Amino acid sequence: MKNPPSLDQLISALKVLPGVGPKSAQRMAYHLLQRDKAGAEKLARALDRALTQLTHCERCNTFSETTLCNVCADDKRRQDTLMVVEMPADLANIEQSQCYDGLYFVLMGRVSPMEGIGTNDIALAKLMARALDGTVEEVIVATNFTAEGEATAHVIGELLKDKGVKLTRIARGLPVGGELEYVDLGTLAQAVYERRGLTR
Amino acid sequence: MKNPPSLDQLISALKVLPGVGPKSAQRMAYHLLQRDKAGAEKLARALDRALTQLTHCERCNTFSETTLCNVCADDKRRQDTLMVVEMPADLANIEQSQCYDGLYFVLMGRVSPMEGIGTNDIALAKLMARALDGTVEEVIVATNFTAEGEATAHVIGELLKDKGVKLTRIARGLPVGGELEYVDLGTLAQAVYERRGLTR
Repeated sequence: MKNPPSLDQLISALKVLPGVGPKSAQRMAYHLLQRDKAGAEKLARALDRALTQLTHCERCNTFSETTLCNVCADDKRRQDTLMVVEMPADLANIEQSQCYDGLYFVLMGRVSPMEGIGTNDIALAKLMARALDGTVEEVIVATNFTAEGEATAHVIGELLKDKGVKLTRIARGLPVGGELEYVDLGTLAQAVYERRGLTR
Repeated sequence: MKNPPSLDQLISALKVLPGVGPKSAQRMAYHLLQRDKAGAEKLARALDRALTQLTHCERCNTFSETTLCNVCADDKRRQDTLMVVEMPADLANIEQSQCYDGLYFVLMGRVSPMEGIGTNDIALAKLMARALDGTVEEVIVATNFTAEGEATAHVIGELLKDKGVKLTRIARGLPVGGELEYVDLGTLAQAVYERRGLTR
């Protein structure tokens, strides 16, 4: 007794999703076919639409349906500051915090030997060209403070040092509301090393 | 700053998958668009194909591309025994164990008030018609030994009792290799209650 081929194909296709193994793929396929055919149809159309319409912003590399994304097309933003983030979700969160009015560059990934993602698999060449196009004075590296994000920050540092742009990294330290008693020791140590003047 | 609409639509469409919330949907969308466009295309096509080609076996209700599935179309199998399972995956596992050569009925679900699945949402009416079509002498209820599976077995028992077919339930007890010291107490108690003659 075998599954019908179209069911097997769907189960195998669902395994392209990150974090989805054979068992979840099977559960997802049953769910879609048994309880949510409209959802399956919606998913197929959304995939088609995204594949045909989404491209990368020519300037900052984020996902965009237009040549320039909304942020890059906005000439009221500071043009001389470029913040480098890993993913569009990071950009979205910074935008929500309303702390920054410069432009961005989205790497669309991080250096991660574990996942087989090397320096050529993220947009470092495009970042170099953008950072050194003459309009940028400061590059703020805002990759994550994970092993991969730190490695990526290091690589960017090596590529852009002594090229005439100011290079900075967002700060580490205690989060808002953080208590010394409960914060992890690595963060606590960084907060002490990177202490700053109390009165500016 | 908002996501392009086609990206938002894809993220929202991925949330139809069971167990996928906003964060995983976003991660899946980025992965597909950034690292596996071929996979995304494959998934869209597999969804389309499954939606157009898959239907339910007229007799046993499992997924099939043909009117009768392979098992039901096989006239070398015992025609007088019908095993009721929840899902095609259960059927597949029983087939792999090679312990059964009768026919099946696949409910495509279980009664589950928690998930809002009532007696009308699984194929109980179709099961009644099949079990009482005159060819079946024994109905073996092989739903899971979970709360939902047991409730479903109870409902089937109520529907089919005194209808002239023999009704049985697969056995509970210790698994092969099970040790009394480590097995859970509920299973142990059932194994004692349902003890059987040592020599048949």
